[in-house]
Amino acid sequence: MAEQPTFAQRGSTEAVEEGLAFALKFDADGLVTCVATDARTGDVLMVAHMNAEALRKTVESGQAWYFSRSRQRLWRKGESSGHGQRVVEMRVDCDQDAVWIKVEQAGGGACHTGRRSCFYRAVPIGGSGAMTLEFRDAEQTFDPAGVYATSNKLPGA
Amino acid sequence: MAEQPTFAQRGSTEAVEEGLAFALKFDADGLVTCVATDARTGDVLMVAHMNAEALRKTVESGQAWYFSRSRQRLWRKGESSGHGQRVVEMRVDCDQDAVWIKVEQAGGGACHTGRRSCFYRAVPIGGSGAMTLEFRDAEQTFDPAGVYATSNKLPGA
Repeated sequence: MAEQPTFAQRGSTEAVEEGLAFALKFDADGLVTCVATDARTGDVLMVAHMNAEALRKTVESGQAWYFSRSRQRLWRKGESSGHGQRVVEMRVDCDQDAVWIKVEQAGGGACHTGRRSCFYRAVPIGGSGAMTLEFRDAEQTFDPAGVYATSNKLPGA
Repeated sequence: MAEQPTFAQRGSTEAVEEGLAFALKFDADGLVTCVATDARTGDVLMVAHMNAEALRKTVESGQAWYFSRSRQRLWRKGESSGHGQRVVEMRVDCDQDAVWIKVEQAGGGACHTGRRSCFYRAVPIGGSGAMTLEFRDAEQTFDPAGVYATSNKLPGA
């Protein structure tokens, strides 16, 4: 018996936006954008990508899997660092080309630089010309050197 | 006198990740991903794209500007609907290819389908095979037919 396909064919705009068929629009590289937020605080932890297999594994296991564009391979968040993400809820957007997962972040944080969130710098609003960033919530919550093996320094997307 | 460039040249990984120069990595189409969350609730309202000009306008004006891939043009969120987004804070991620804005969403919501958020359907976790979505926070908070002119039906990215 043939395996049941995970994703539906995309129909009309009406079907994609108002229907209940999971009809993701993968980009030319076979990816959708995934935003992971902290289920407790609402903070955005990271933005990464999923291919069809990463998405299927995430849904089936309840653990976040991504596809690394730089390394061109599937990875389970936490496979190197031990800082996995348990998915509390997954949502898909109106045109079904992005997903949002609310996660329980294990360990010190999501960012390979040792912070809880990858978004640890702010862009001041109201300026013009050259923009200078400001650190915000940038304290390290773990030591990345102690967590990642040298050969595995860049777990990100 | 030459205008001061908005964005810095990208240096080493160390400089991009730990520095204060705003050195965005635009993709092959000249875009970065932007996640907009509700500054009050933390909910993800939408995921869209910004090009350099949209980003500059957003920072200078404090109102969210995006670049529509489908319409290939710059747009200010709310220009059709009146439902603008005031940017409370902007963050950039570790490798500087995504930004996160916390916004005060004007009007009924951010989604052109009439919902507060574009993420009004959940993907059940733990299943396998064909996945069926479930509506979640999907009540319409405004009537899109009354808000968008017919010629402007798809304000999204």
